[in-house]
Amino acid sequence: MSRSQRIVAIVKALLDNPASVLSLGEFAKGLDAAKSTLSEDIAVVREAFSAVRAGVIETVPGPAGGVRYLPSRSREDVKTLVSNLCLALSAPDRILPGEFVYMTDLVFSPAWAGAMGEVFATRFRSSQAQYVLTVETKGIPVALCTARCLGVPLAVCRRDSVPTEGPALSINYVSGSSRRIQTMSLPKRALARDSRVLIVDDFMKGGGTARGMTELVSEFGAAVAGIAVLIEMEYPQKKLVKDYFSLAVLHAVDESQHNIDVRPSPKIDEI
Amino acid sequence: MSRSQRIVAIVKALLDNPASVLSLGEFAKGLDAAKSTLSEDIAVVREAFSAVRAGVIETVPGPAGGVRYLPSRSREDVKTLVSNLCLALSAPDRILPGEFVYMTDLVFSPAWAGAMGEVFATRFRSSQAQYVLTVETKGIPVALCTARCLGVPLAVCRRDSVPTEGPALSINYVSGSSRRIQTMSLPKRALARDSRVLIVDDFMKGGGTARGMTELVSEFGAAVAGIAVLIEMEYPQKKLVKDYFSLAVLHAVDESQHNIDVRPSPKIDEI
Repeated sequence: MSRSQRIVAIVKALLDNPASVLSLGEFAKGLDAAKSTLSEDIAVVREAFSAVRAGVIETVPGPAGGVRYLPSRSREDVKTLVSNLCLALSAPDRILPGEFVYMTDLVFSPAWAGAMGEVFATRFRSSQAQYVLTVETKGIPVALCTARCLGVPLAVCRRDSVPTEGPALSINYVSGSSRRIQTMSLPKRALARDSRVLIVDDFMKGGGTARGMTELVSEFGAAVAGIAVLIEMEYPQKKLVKDYFSLAVLHAVDESQHNIDVRPSPKIDEI
Repeated sequence: MSRSQRIVAIVKALLDNPASVLSLGEFAKGLDAAKSTLSEDIAVVREAFSAVRAGVIETVPGPAGGVRYLPSRSREDVKTLVSNLCLALSAPDRILPGEFVYMTDLVFSPAWAGAMGEVFATRFRSSQAQYVLTVETKGIPVALCTARCLGVPLAVCRRDSVPTEGPALSINYVSGSSRRIQTMSLPKRALARDSRVLIVDDFMKGGGTARGMTELVSEFGAAVAGIAVLIEMEYPQKKLVKDYFSLAVLHAVDESQHNIDVRPSPKIDEI
Protein backbone atom coordinates (compact mmCIF):
# COMPACT_ATOMS: atom_id res chain seq x y z
CA MET A 1 0.00 0.00 0.00
CA SER A 2 1.26 3.44 -0.88
CA ARG A 3 1.26 6.36 1.53
CA SER A 4 -1.61 7.95 -0.39
CA GLN A 5 -3.67 4.80 -0.03
CA ARG A 6 -2.94 4.57 3.67
CA ILE A 7 -3.91 8.21 4.08
CA VAL A 8 -7.24 7.62 2.33
CA ALA A 9 -7.93 4.64 4.59
CA ILE A 10 -6.99 6.59 7.73
CA VAL A 11 -9.15 9.59 6.82
CA LYS A 12 -12.12 7.32 6.02
CA ALA A 13 -11.82 5.49 9.34
CA LEU A 14 -11.50 8.75 11.29
CA LEU A 15 -14.46 10.45 9.58
CA ASP A 16 -16.63 7.34 9.99
CA ASN A 17 -15.99 7.32 13.74
CA PRO A 18 -16.03 10.91 14.98
CA ALA A 19 -14.85 11.48 18.56
CA SER A 20 -13.76 7.83 18.87
CA VAL A 21 -10.17 6.99 19.67
CA LEU A 22 -8.72 4.69 17.00
CA SER A 23 -5.57 2.95 18.12
CA LEU A 24 -2.37 2.98 16.12
CA GLY A 25 -2.17 -0.76 16.65
CA GLU A 26 -5.48 -1.37 14.87
CA PHE A 27 -4.42 0.81 11.96
CA ALA A 28 -1.08 -1.02 11.81
CA LYS A 29 -2.86 -4.38 11.64
CA GLY A 30 -5.52 -3.29 9.16
CA LEU A 31 -3.09 -1.51 6.84
CA ASP A 32 -0.17 -3.88 7.29
CA ALA A 33 2.28 -1.10 8.08
CA ALA A 34 4.73 -0.34 10.89
CA LYS A 35 3.53 1.91 13.70
CA SER A 36 6.34 4.38 12.94
CA THR A 37 5.14 4.66 9.32
CA LEU A 38 1.59 5.22 10.53
CA SER A 39 2.69 7.92 12.95
CA GLU A 40 4.13 9.78 9.97
CA ASP A 41 0.93 9.25 7.96
CA ILE A 42 -1.18 10.55 10.82
CA ALA A 43 1.03 13.63 11.15
CA VAL A 44 0.36 14.37 7.48
CA VAL A 45 -3.38 13.88 7.99
CA ARG A 46 -3.37 16.15 11.05
CA GLU A 47 -1.58 18.93 9.22
CA ALA A 48 -3.89 18.65 6.23
CA PHE A 49 -7.01 18.84 8.41
CA SER A 50 -5.62 21.93 10.04
CA ALA A 51 -4.62 23.48 6.68
CA VAL A 52 -8.06 23.04 5.11
CA ARG A 53 -9.91 23.74 8.41
CA ALA A 54 -11.72 20.43 8.19
CA GLY A 55 -11.95 19.75 11.92
CA VAL A 56 -9.38 18.66 14.48
CA ILE A 57 -7.28 15.50 14.49
CA GLU A 58 -6.21 14.87 18.06
CA THR A 59 -3.58 12.47 19.33
CA VAL A 60 -4.52 10.76 22.57
CA PRO A 61 -1.46 9.55 24.53
CA GLY A 62 -1.22 6.55 26.82
CA PRO A 63 -1.94 2.81 26.61
CA ALA A 64 -5.58 3.37 25.53
CA GLY A 65 -4.37 6.10 23.20
CA GLY A 66 -4.50 6.65 19.51
CA VAL A 67 -5.96 9.29 17.28
CA ARG A 68 -9.41 10.79 16.92
CA TYR A 69 -11.33 13.18 14.72
CA LEU A 70 -13.34 15.98 16.32
CA PRO A 71 -15.70 17.61 13.80
CA SER A 72 -15.57 21.35 14.26
CA ARG A 73 -16.63 24.48 12.44
CA SER A 74 -15.03 27.91 12.59
CA ARG A 75 -17.17 30.87 13.63
CA GLU A 76 -16.89 32.26 10.09
CA ASP A 77 -18.07 28.99 8.67
CA VAL A 78 -21.00 28.90 11.10
CA LYS A 79 -21.96 32.44 10.13
CA THR A 80 -22.08 31.53 6.46
CA LEU A 81 -24.06 28.38 7.20
CA VAL A 82 -26.62 30.20 9.36
CA SER A 83 -27.00 33.02 6.82
CA ASN A 84 -27.83 30.39 4.24
CA LEU A 85 -30.27 28.76 6.66
CA CYS A 86 -32.02 32.10 7.26
CA LEU A 87 -32.16 32.73 3.55
CA ALA A 88 -33.74 29.33 2.94
CA LEU A 89 -36.23 29.87 5.79
CA SER A 90 -37.25 33.32 4.51
CA ALA A 91 -38.82 32.03 1.31
CA PRO A 92 -42.40 33.44 1.44
CA ASP A 93 -43.93 30.17 0.24
CA ARG A 94 -42.95 28.68 3.59
CA ILE A 95 -45.75 30.61 5.33
CA LEU A 96 -48.45 28.21 6.53
CA PRO A 97 -51.99 28.90 7.76
CA GLY A 98 -51.69 30.28 11.29
CA GLU A 99 -48.43 32.07 10.44
CA PHE A 100 -46.36 29.00 11.03
CA VAL A 101 -43.23 28.48 8.95
CA TYR A 102 -42.71 25.21 7.07
CA MET A 103 -39.30 23.94 8.21
CA THR A 104 -39.85 20.20 7.90
CA ASP A 105 -37.75 19.80 4.76
CA LEU A 106 -34.79 21.51 6.40
CA VAL A 107 -34.90 19.73 9.76
CA PHE A 108 -35.21 16.35 7.98
CA SER A 109 -32.55 17.13 5.39
CA PRO A 110 -29.53 14.87 5.96
CA ALA A 111 -27.14 17.61 4.77
CA TRP A 112 -28.57 20.37 6.98
CA ALA A 113 -28.95 18.11 10.00
CA GLY A 114 -25.35 16.96 9.54
CA ALA A 115 -23.98 20.49 9.30
CA MET A 116 -26.02 21.75 12.27
CA GLY A 117 -24.94 18.74 14.32
CA GLU A 118 -21.31 19.74 13.68
CA VAL A 119 -22.08 23.28 14.83
CA PHE A 120 -23.75 22.11 18.07
CA ALA A 121 -20.87 19.68 18.69
CA THR A 122 -18.37 22.52 18.21
CA ARG A 123 -20.24 24.72 20.70
CA PHE A 124 -20.68 21.97 23.29
CA ARG A 125 -17.44 20.01 22.81
CA SER A 126 -16.17 21.10 26.22
CA SER A 127 -19.48 20.48 28.01
CA GLN A 128 -18.48 16.86 28.67
CA ALA A 129 -21.92 15.67 27.66
CA GLN A 130 -22.34 11.89 27.84
CA TYR A 131 -25.73 11.85 26.11
CA VAL A 132 -27.72 13.96 23.70
CA LEU A 133 -31.42 14.16 24.58
CA THR A 134 -34.24 15.34 22.34
CA VAL A 135 -38.00 14.91 22.11
CA GLU A 136 -39.79 13.34 19.16
CA THR A 137 -40.08 14.19 16.24
CA LYS A 138 -38.44 17.06 14.41
CA GLY A 139 -35.48 17.40 16.76
CA ILE A 140 -34.29 13.85 16.10
CA PRO A 141 -32.15 14.41 12.97
CA VAL A 142 -30.04 17.27 14.35
CA ALA A 143 -29.84 15.56 17.75
CA LEU A 144 -28.63 12.34 16.11
CA CYS A 145 -25.97 14.22 14.14
CA THR A 146 -24.86 16.12 17.26
CA ALA A 147 -24.57 12.86 19.19
CA ARG A 148 -22.57 11.34 16.33
CA CYS A 149 -20.11 14.27 16.32
CA LEU A 150 -19.71 14.10 20.10
CA GLY A 151 -19.38 10.30 20.06
CA VAL A 152 -22.20 9.81 22.59
CA PRO A 153 -25.58 7.98 22.53
CA LEU A 154 -28.86 9.66 21.66
CA ALA A 155 -31.93 9.42 23.91
CA VAL A 156 -35.38 10.44 22.67
CA CYS A 157 -38.31 11.50 24.87
CA ARG A 158 -41.73 10.33 23.73
CA ARG A 159 -45.09 12.01 24.06
CA ASP A 160 -46.47 8.68 25.32
CA SER A 161 -44.61 5.80 26.84
CA VAL A 162 -44.67 2.72 24.63
CA PRO A 163 -44.52 -0.93 25.71
CA THR A 164 -41.59 -1.69 23.40
CA GLU A 165 -39.37 0.60 25.44
CA GLY A 166 -40.09 -0.89 28.85
CA PRO A 167 -40.43 0.93 32.16
CA ALA A 168 -40.29 4.68 31.66
CA LEU A 169 -40.11 7.83 33.72
CA SER A 170 -42.82 10.33 32.83
CA ILE A 171 -43.30 13.95 33.75
CA ASN A 172 -45.97 16.53 33.13
CA TYR A 173 -44.87 19.93 32.01
CA VAL A 174 -46.51 23.17 30.97
CA SER A 175 -45.93 24.27 27.41
CA GLY A 176 -44.36 27.74 27.54
CA SER A 177 -46.51 29.10 24.74
CA SER A 178 -49.90 27.34 24.89
CA ARG A 179 -49.87 26.89 28.72
CA ARG A 180 -51.28 23.41 28.19
CA ILE A 181 -50.19 20.53 30.36
CA GLN A 182 -48.32 17.92 28.39
CA THR A 183 -46.55 14.66 29.14
CA MET A 184 -43.17 13.36 28.09
CA SER A 185 -41.52 10.10 28.99
CA LEU A 186 -38.17 8.44 28.64
CA PRO A 187 -37.27 4.75 29.08
CA LYS A 188 -35.52 4.10 32.39
CA ARG A 189 -32.66 2.48 30.52
CA ALA A 190 -32.07 5.52 28.34
CA LEU A 191 -29.91 7.61 30.71
CA ALA A 192 -27.44 6.64 33.43
CA ARG A 193 -27.48 8.30 36.86
CA ASP A 194 -24.96 11.10 37.43
CA SER A 195 -24.42 11.55 33.71
CA ARG A 196 -24.23 14.83 31.82
CA VAL A 197 -26.88 15.44 29.16
CA LEU A 198 -26.96 17.89 26.25
CA ILE A 199 -30.55 18.84 25.32
CA VAL A 200 -31.11 19.45 21.59
CA ASP A 201 -34.29 20.50 19.79
CA ASP A 202 -35.29 22.10 16.52
CA PHE A 203 -37.42 24.96 17.82
CA MET A 204 -38.01 26.98 20.98
CA LYS A 205 -40.97 29.25 21.57
CA GLY A 206 -41.51 29.71 25.30
CA GLY A 207 -38.96 27.11 26.35
CA GLY A 208 -41.53 24.82 27.98
CA THR A 209 -40.37 21.70 26.16
CA ALA A 210 -36.72 22.38 27.01
CA ARG A 211 -37.73 23.02 30.62
CA GLY A 212 -39.64 19.72 30.63
CA MET A 213 -36.57 17.87 29.37
CA THR A 214 -34.48 19.60 32.06
CA GLU A 215 -36.86 18.31 34.73
CA LEU A 216 -36.84 14.82 33.24
CA VAL A 217 -33.02 14.83 33.26
CA SER A 218 -33.01 15.73 36.93
CA GLU A 219 -35.57 12.98 37.67
CA PHE A 220 -32.97 10.57 36.27
CA GLY A 221 -30.40 11.96 38.71
CA ALA A 222 -28.46 13.37 35.76
CA ALA A 223 -27.28 16.91 34.99
CA VAL A 224 -27.92 19.21 32.03
CA ALA A 225 -24.69 19.95 30.15
CA GLY A 226 -26.33 22.49 27.84
CA ILE A 227 -29.38 23.30 25.72
CA ALA A 228 -29.18 23.88 21.97
CA VAL A 229 -31.96 24.73 19.51
CA LEU A 230 -31.86 25.47 15.82
CA ILE A 231 -34.38 28.30 15.84
CA GLU A 232 -35.91 30.32 18.66
CA MET A 233 -38.81 32.72 18.42
CA GLU A 234 -38.14 36.26 19.52
CA TYR A 235 -41.39 36.31 21.53
CA PRO A 236 -41.99 35.53 24.31
CA GLN A 237 -38.62 37.02 25.19
CA LYS A 238 -38.69 35.51 28.64
CA LYS A 239 -38.07 31.79 28.17
CA LEU A 240 -38.66 29.08 30.74
CA VAL A 241 -34.99 28.06 30.58
CA LYS A 242 -32.09 30.39 31.25
CA ASP A 243 -29.00 29.28 29.39
CA TYR A 244 -29.49 28.02 25.90
CA PHE A 245 -27.81 28.29 22.53
CA SER A 246 -29.62 29.01 19.28
CA LEU A 247 -28.58 29.42 15.67
CA ALA A 248 -31.35 31.67 14.36
CA VAL A 249 -34.11 33.89 15.71
CA LEU A 250 -37.56 34.02 14.14
CA HIS A 251 -38.62 37.65 14.65
CA ALA A 252 -41.89 37.78 12.77
CA VAL A 253 -44.12 36.06 10.23
CA ASP A 254 -46.44 38.36 8.30
CA GLU A 255 -48.87 36.48 6.11
CA SER A 256 -50.38 39.59 4.48
CA GLN A 257 -46.96 40.97 3.53
CA HIS A 258 -45.63 37.50 2.53
CA ASN A 259 -42.70 38.13 4.81
CA ILE A 260 -40.71 35.90 7.17
CA ASP A 261 -38.17 37.76 9.30
CA VAL A 262 -35.57 35.25 10.49
CA ARG A 263 -32.02 36.28 11.35
CA PRO A 264 -28.85 34.72 12.72
CA SER A 265 -28.85 34.47 16.50
CA PRO A 266 -26.39 36.71 18.39
CA LYS A 267 -25.49 33.56 20.34
CA ILE A 268 -23.43 32.30 17.40
CA ASP A 269 -20.64 34.47 18.77
CA GLU A 270 -20.29 31.93 21.58
CA ILE A 271 -18.54 29.67 19.07
CA MET B 1 -0.45 22.29 -0.79
CA SER B 2 1.10 18.86 -1.04
CA ARG B 3 -0.56 15.92 -2.76
CA SER B 4 -1.21 14.31 0.61
CA GLN B 5 -2.96 17.45 1.83
CA ARG B 6 -5.06 17.67 -1.32
CA ILE B 7 -6.01 14.01 -0.95
CA VAL B 8 -7.14 14.57 2.62
CA ALA B 9 -9.26 17.55 1.52
CA ILE B 10 -10.78 15.60 -1.38
CA VAL B 11 -11.64 12.58 0.77
CA LYS B 12 -13.20 14.82 3.45
CA ALA B 13 -15.36 16.62 0.87
CA LEU B 14 -16.48 13.36 -0.75
CA LEU B 15 -17.35 11.64 2.54
CA ASP B 16 -19.21 14.72 3.79
CA ASN B 17 -21.41 14.74 0.67
CA PRO B 18 -22.27 11.16 -0.20
CA ALA B 19 -23.94 10.59 -3.59
CA SER B 20 -23.41 14.26 -4.55
CA VAL B 21 -21.43 15.12 -7.65
CA LEU B 22 -18.55 17.44 -6.73
CA SER B 23 -17.10 19.22 -9.74
CA LEU B 24 -13.41 19.22 -10.56
CA GLY B 25 -13.68 22.97 -11.06
CA GLU B 26 -14.80 23.54 -7.47
CA PHE B 27 -11.98 21.38 -6.16
CA ALA B 28 -9.52 23.26 -8.39
CA LYS B 29 -10.68 26.60 -6.98
CA GLY B 30 -10.84 25.47 -3.36
CA LEU B 31 -7.48 23.73 -3.43
CA ASP B 32 -5.71 26.13 -5.79
CA ALA B 33 -4.50 23.37 -8.10
CA ALA B 34 -4.71 22.61 -11.82
CA LYS B 35 -7.51 20.34 -13.00
CA SER B 36 -4.95 17.91 -14.42
CA THR B 37 -3.28 17.63 -11.01
CA LEU B 38 -6.65 17.04 -9.39
CA SER B 39 -7.52 14.33 -11.88
CA GLU B 40 -4.40 12.51 -10.78
CA ASP B 41 -5.28 13.01 -7.12
CA ILE B 42 -8.77 11.68 -7.66
CA ALA B 43 -7.41 8.62 -9.47
CA VAL B 44 -5.30 7.89 -6.39
CA VAL B 45 -8.34 8.33 -4.13
CA ARG B 46 -10.44 6.05 -6.33
CA GLU B 47 -7.85 3.29 -6.27
CA ALA B 48 -7.41 3.59 -2.54
CA PHE B 49 -11.17 3.34 -1.91
CA SER B 50 -11.29 0.26 -4.05
CA ALA B 51 -8.20 -1.26 -2.37
CA VAL B 52 -9.54 -0.84 1.16
CA ARG B 53 -13.16 -1.59 0.13
CA ALA B 54 -14.37 1.70 1.58
CA GLY B 55 -17.13 2.38 -0.94
CA VAL B 56 -17.10 3.48 -4.55
CA ILE B 57 -15.65 6.66 -6.03
CA GLU B 58 -17.40 7.29 -9.32
CA THR B 59 -16.45 9.71 -12.06
CA VAL B 60 -19.42 11.42 -13.70
CA PRO B 61 -18.64 12.64 -17.23
CA GLY B 62 -20.10 15.64 -19.03
CA PRO B 63 -20.50 19.36 -18.35
CA ALA B 64 -22.33 18.80 -15.03
CA GLY B 65 -19.82 16.09 -14.25
CA GLY B 66 -17.30 15.53 -11.52
CA VAL B 67 -16.74 12.88 -8.92
CA ARG B 68 -18.92 11.34 -6.23
CA TYR B 69 -18.71 8.95 -3.33
CA LEU B 70 -21.23 6.12 -3.09
CA PRO B 71 -21.14 4.47 0.34
CA SER B 72 -21.34 0.74 -0.07
CA ARG B 73 -20.78 -2.39 1.94
CA SER B 74 -19.71 -5.80 0.71
CA ARG B 75 -21.91 -8.79 1.46
CA GLU B 76 -19.23 -10.17 3.76
CA ASP B 77 -19.10 -6.91 5.64
CA VAL B 78 -22.90 -6.85 5.95
CA LYS B 79 -22.88 -10.41 7.30
CA THR B 80 -20.39 -9.48 10.02
CA LEU B 81 -22.35 -6.36 10.88
CA VAL B 82 -25.66 -8.22 11.12
CA SER B 83 -24.11 -11.02 13.19
CA ASN B 84 -22.92 -8.38 15.63
CA LEU B 85 -26.38 -6.80 15.63
CA CYS B 86 -28.01 -10.15 16.42
CA LEU B 87 -25.48 -10.77 19.18
CA ALA B 88 -26.23 -7.38 20.71
CA LEU B 89 -29.99 -7.96 20.43
CA SER B 90 -29.78 -11.42 22.05
CA ALA B 91 -28.65 -10.14 25.44
CA PRO B 92 -31.27 -11.58 27.85
CA ASP B 93 -31.54 -8.33 29.81
CA ARG B 94 -33.23 -6.83 26.75
CA ILE B 95 -36.41 -8.79 27.46
CA LEU B 96 -39.19 -6.44 28.53
CA PRO B 97 -42.58 -7.18 30.14
CA GLY B 98 -44.86 -8.58 27.42
CA GLU B 99 -41.89 -10.32 25.71
CA PHE B 100 -40.88 -7.21 23.83
CA VAL B 101 -37.19 -6.66 23.12
CA TYR B 102 -35.55 -3.37 24.11
CA MET B 103 -33.93 -2.07 20.92
CA THR B 104 -34.15 1.66 21.52
CA ASP B 105 -30.45 2.11 22.30
CA LEU B 106 -29.46 0.40 19.04
CA VAL B 107 -31.93 2.18 16.73
CA PHE B 108 -30.95 5.56 18.21
CA SER B 109 -27.22 4.82 18.20
CA PRO B 110 -25.50 7.10 15.66
CA ALA B 111 -22.93 4.41 14.83
CA TRP B 112 -25.48 1.61 14.25
CA ALA B 113 -27.89 3.86 12.38
CA GLY B 114 -25.02 5.05 10.16
CA ALA B 115 -23.84 1.53 9.36
CA MET B 116 -27.36 0.25 8.68
CA GLY B 117 -28.06 3.25 6.48
CA GLU B 118 -25.03 2.28 4.39
CA VAL B 119 -26.34 -1.25 4.09
CA PHE B 120 -29.81 -0.12 2.96
CA ALA B 121 -28.23 2.33 0.50
CA THR B 122 -26.09 -0.48 -0.93
CA ARG B 123 -29.15 -2.69 -1.38
CA PHE B 124 -31.32 0.04 -2.93
CA ARG B 125 -28.69 2.02 -4.84
CA SER B 126 -30.16 0.95 -8.15
CA SER B 127 -33.79 1.53 -7.11
CA GLN B 128 -33.57 5.15 -8.25
CA ALA B 129 -35.34 6.31 -5.10
CA GLN B 130 -35.78 10.08 -4.91
CA TYR B 131 -36.99 10.09 -1.31
CA VAL B 132 -36.68 7.97 1.79
CA LEU B 133 -39.92 7.72 3.77
CA THR B 134 -40.35 6.52 7.34
CA VAL B 135 -42.86 6.93 10.16
CA GLU B 136 -42.06 8.49 13.53
CA THR B 137 -40.24 7.64 15.80
CA LYS B 138 -37.76 4.79 15.93
CA GLY B 139 -37.29 4.47 12.17
CA ILE B 140 -36.01 8.04 11.83
CA PRO B 141 -32.29 7.52 12.53
CA VAL B 142 -31.74 4.66 10.07
CA ALA B 143 -34.00 6.36 7.50
CA LEU B 144 -32.03 9.60 7.82
CA CYS B 145 -28.73 7.76 7.36
CA THR B 146 -30.10 5.85 4.35
CA ALA B 147 -31.29 9.11 2.78
CA ARG B 148 -27.87 10.66 3.41
CA CYS B 149 -26.08 7.75 1.70
CA LEU B 150 -28.46 7.93 -1.28
CA GLY B 151 -28.23 11.72 -1.47
CA VAL B 152 -32.02 12.17 -1.28
CA PRO B 153 -34.39 13.97 1.15
CA LEU B 154 -36.11 12.27 4.06
CA ALA B 155 -39.87 12.47 4.62
CA VAL B 156 -41.45 11.42 7.92
CA CYS B 157 -45.06 10.32 8.42
CA ARG B 158 -46.68 11.47 11.65
CA ARG B 159 -49.30 9.73 13.77
CA ASP B 160 -51.22 13.04 13.85
CA SER B 161 -50.96 15.93 11.48
CA VAL B 162 -49.47 19.03 13.12
CA PRO B 163 -50.19 22.67 12.26
CA THR B 164 -46.48 23.48 11.85
CA GLU B 165 -46.33 21.20 8.82
CA GLY B 166 -49.25 22.68 6.91
CA PRO B 167 -51.79 20.84 4.79
CA ALA B 168 -51.30 17.10 5.03
CA LEU B 169 -52.59 13.95 3.41
CA SER B 170 -53.87 11.42 5.94
CA ILE B 171 -54.82 7.78 5.61
CA ASN B 172 -56.26 5.19 7.90
CA TYR B 173 -54.68 1.78 7.91
CA VAL B 174 -55.07 -1.46 9.80
CA SER B 175 -52.15 -2.54 11.89
CA GLY B 176 -51.08 -6.00 10.71
CA SER B 177 -50.61 -7.38 14.19
CA SER B 178 -53.15 -5.68 16.47
CA ARG B 179 -55.82 -5.22 13.75
CA ARG B 180 -56.49 -1.74 15.13
CA ILE B 181 -57.27 1.14 12.83
CA GLN B 182 -54.58 3.78 12.94
CA THR B 183 -53.88 7.06 11.19
CA MET B 184 -50.75 8.39 9.55
CA SER B 185 -50.27 11.66 7.76
CA LEU B 186 -47.64 13.37 5.66
CA PRO B 187 -47.35 17.07 4.72
CA LYS B 188 -48.45 17.71 1.15
CA ARG B 189 -45.11 19.37 0.46
CA ALA B 190 -43.12 16.35 1.58
CA LEU B 191 -43.25 14.28 -1.62
CA ALA B 192 -43.40 15.25 -5.30
CA ARG B 193 -45.82 13.57 -7.73
CA ASP B 194 -44.39 10.82 -9.91
CA SER B 195 -41.40 10.39 -7.64
CA ARG B 196 -39.91 7.13 -6.43
CA VAL B 197 -39.92 6.49 -2.69
CA LEU B 198 -37.91 4.05 -0.57
CA ILE B 199 -39.78 3.05 2.61
CA VAL B 200 -37.56 2.45 5.65
CA ASP B 201 -38.53 1.37 9.16
CA ASP B 202 -36.93 -0.21 12.18
CA PHE B 203 -39.33 -3.09 12.75
CA MET B 204 -41.95 -5.13 10.92
CA LYS B 205 -44.44 -7.45 12.56
CA GLY B 206 -47.46 -7.93 10.28
CA GLY B 207 -46.40 -5.31 7.76
CA GLY B 208 -49.40 -3.05 8.41
CA THR B 209 -47.33 0.09 8.89
CA ALA B 210 -45.33 -0.55 5.73
CA ARG B 211 -48.58 -1.23 3.89
CA GLY B 212 -49.96 2.06 5.22
CA MET B 213 -46.92 3.95 3.96
CA THR B 214 -47.30 2.22 0.59
CA GLU B 215 -50.88 3.49 0.36
CA LEU B 216 -49.87 6.97 1.41
CA VAL B 217 -47.17 7.00 -1.28
CA SER B 218 -49.74 6.08 -3.90
CA GLU B 219 -52.11 8.82 -2.62
CA PHE B 220 -49.29 11.25 -3.46
CA GLY B 221 -49.15 9.89 -7.00
CA ALA B 222 -45.71 8.49 -6.27
CA ALA B 223 -44.29 4.97 -6.55
CA VAL B 224 -42.65 2.69 -4.02
CA ALA B 225 -39.01 1.99 -4.94
CA GLY B 226 -38.52 -0.55 -2.16
CA ILE B 227 -39.20 -1.41 1.48
CA ALA B 228 -36.41 -1.96 4.00
CA VAL B 229 -36.65 -2.82 7.70
CA LEU B 230 -33.97 -3.56 10.25
CA ILE B 231 -35.75 -6.41 12.00
CA GLU B 232 -38.79 -8.45 11.07
CA MET B 233 -40.66 -10.88 13.27
CA GLU B 234 -40.92 -14.42 12.00
CA TYR B 235 -44.65 -14.49 12.85
CA PRO B 236 -47.07 -13.74 11.31
CA GLN B 237 -45.25 -15.21 8.31
CA LYS B 238 -47.76 -13.71 5.91
CA LYS B 239 -47.00 -9.98 5.83
CA LEU B 240 -49.27 -7.29 4.41
CA VAL B 241 -46.55 -6.25 1.94
CA LYS B 242 -44.92 -8.53 -0.58
CA ASP B 243 -41.44 -7.37 -1.42
CA TYR B 244 -39.36 -6.12 1.41
CA PHE B 245 -35.80 -6.35 2.61
CA SER B 246 -34.78 -7.08 6.20
CA LEU B 247 -31.50 -7.47 8.03
CA ALA B 248 -32.53 -9.73 10.89
CA VAL B 249 -35.41 -12.00 11.89
CA LEU B 250 -36.75 -12.17 15.43
CA HIS B 251 -37.82 -15.79 15.80
CA ALA B 252 -38.84 -15.96 19.44
CA VAL B 253 -38.63 -14.28 22.80
CA ASP B 254 -38.90 -16.58 25.80
CA GLU B 255 -39.13 -14.73 29.07
CA SER B 256 -39.03 -17.81 31.27
CA GLN B 257 -35.90 -19.17 29.54
CA HIS B 258 -34.30 -15.70 29.32
CA ASN B 259 -33.79 -16.29 25.65
CA ILE B 260 -34.08 -14.06 22.58
CA ASP B 261 -33.74 -15.90 19.28
CA VAL B 262 -32.77 -13.36 16.62
CA ARG B 263 -30.84 -14.36 13.49
CA PRO B 264 -29.55 -12.76 10.29
CA SER B 265 -32.22 -12.52 7.60
CA PRO B 266 -31.78 -14.74 4.52
CA LYS B 267 -32.53 -11.58 2.53
CA ILE B 268 -29.03 -10.23 3.12
CA ASP B 269 -27.97 -12.45 0.24
CA GLU B 270 -29.71 -9.91 -2.02
CA ILE B 271 -26.72 -7.62 -1.43
